[in-house]
Amino acid sequence: MELWYTEKQTDSYGITAKIKETYVSEQTEFQKLDMIETEEFGTMLVLDGMVMTTDKDEFVYHEMVAHPALYTHPNPEHVLVVGGGDGGVIREILKHPQVKKAVLVDIDGKVIEYSKKYLPNIAGGLDDPRVEVIVNDGFMHIHDHKNEYDVVMVDSTEPVGPAVNLFTRGFYQGIYDALKEDGIFVAQTDNPWFNSELIASVNRDVKEVFPIVRVYWANVPTYPSGLWTFTMGSKKHDPLLVDESSIPELDTKYYSPRLHKAAFVLPKFVEDLVK
Amino acid sequence: MELWYTEKQTDSYGITAKIKETYVSEQTEFQKLDMIETEEFGTMLVLDGMVMTTDKDEFVYHEMVAHPALYTHPNPEHVLVVGGGDGGVIREILKHPQVKKAVLVDIDGKVIEYSKKYLPNIAGGLDDPRVEVIVNDGFMHIHDHKNEYDVVMVDSTEPVGPAVNLFTRGFYQGIYDALKEDGIFVAQTDNPWFNSELIASVNRDVKEVFPIVRVYWANVPTYPSGLWTFTMGSKKHDPLLVDESSIPELDTKYYSPRLHKAAFVLPKFVEDLVK
Repeated sequence: MELWYTEKQTDSYGITAKIKETYVSEQTEFQKLDMIETEEFGTMLVLDGMVMTTDKDEFVYHEMVAHPALYTHPNPEHVLVVGGGDGGVIREILKHPQVKKAVLVDIDGKVIEYSKKYLPNIAGGLDDPRVEVIVNDGFMHIHDHKNEYDVVMVDSTEPVGPAVNLFTRGFYQGIYDALKEDGIFVAQTDNPWFNSELIASVNRDVKEVFPIVRVYWANVPTYPSGLWTFTMGSKKHDPLLVDESSIPELDTKYYSPRLHKAAFVLPKFVEDLVK
Repeated sequence: MELWYTEKQTDSYGITAKIKETYVSEQTEFQKLDMIETEEFGTMLVLDGMVMTTDKDEFVYHEMVAHPALYTHPNPEHVLVVGGGDGGVIREILKHPQVKKAVLVDIDGKVIEYSKKYLPNIAGGLDDPRVEVIVNDGFMHIHDHKNEYDVVMVDSTEPVGPAVNLFTRGFYQGIYDALKEDGIFVAQTDNPWFNSELIASVNRDVKEVFPIVRVYWANVPTYPSGLWTFTMGSKKHDPLLVDESSIPELDTKYYSPRLHKAAFVLPKFVEDLVK
């Protein structure tokens, strides 16, 4: 018998992957959590029926959340990740020696627990001494911390279920207040093929809060359409003014010094969404 | 009853799209041809079980085959398209007023016939007076024409079935000979996630024939992984030395003057494939 996982990424389109084994299929306090072993992508974490990460292509998303902001900020010492319980963004943050402390706040402790068990290559950094892991609502954490972080990264699920508050103007204002005077914020903001209105509305909201707003993108095969966008809000530092020759070659597979600015050049129909 | 078209893009991974209607499902002299109406992507042309083009995302591929080469060559008057019977690349070529003649050579007349009927927005340019449509083997056409074209574009299926000869060093040498002294060649060269060896081997072969070889990419949601590569071989003109400010704003949805060079900045794991 062949088992296939099929994710409807829209009402009438989806991806399908042959699976070898189901490790976890559980309703947590916050969401449906599935951890499955696929033939093509290795271990795959699925939340509320949406692929979050896989062994094969996780490096793209995690590198592209972490490095553009960290190489835009001149001295990122104190970094916050909201969501991201699989630990992939933390792993990338730890590649930066300037980072003294990285705080991860995920609302769902089960994501952290199962990622450590089934995705050790992704979650390994969560036990690093520079990392503090907090199981809490990111919205509340942001509210309780002012003028504290150099960089805040939002590695959330889509704006349904537990992440719905993370796509509001109020949340972006909270992040602004949680950042130091030259802080930078970055969030994943879905894809322009099936969810273009979200990109446009987030862009409008972030522009009301941050003086510098930039959108960049990367190819993640297991995310809808394969084109994923990220929105950056910055108080002072502009990612497009970074001297790429000052960026060191890092142990990465997607991001590179050469890609730093190119990732901000959007396909024209995406550019038009955020004008 | 719901009908879904599922394409296995690898042995263990695929995409699936809900369909409203099947217009054509026919074995031509050369390949299996399906023309279906999908909910998400509109009309979809499928050859030998692989999506070739859809109403919704066709602009990406067709623009990105045509414009980078045409804006690298200073005066592209005589252009050849090998394959591309749907007419999408021809439509983009016709946006360039310098082009005096565009020749399309597709081995399968049925692709042309059904594209005109079911994909009129894509195939419309095939009846333009500047266009000559030839139903023939592109390999033979190339062999019979020397020193004739400014730009040759290979818009082929994958290297199985009728297109297998179009991925050989001998074919690239034939194209070199069919090009004038400052001619440019471009071909679609699949994706690096599931078919990385092809990109590497084409790159080695093209480098043996052309002095300037560059690889660029674009996001095409209905192609495997969403990351599609194109390989350009050039006798004289380097796409990376083009003055982007000299490129006019065109009626495009993906390509732009700003994207011209950025498209050549590859994700690091792709860069490593073609070093």
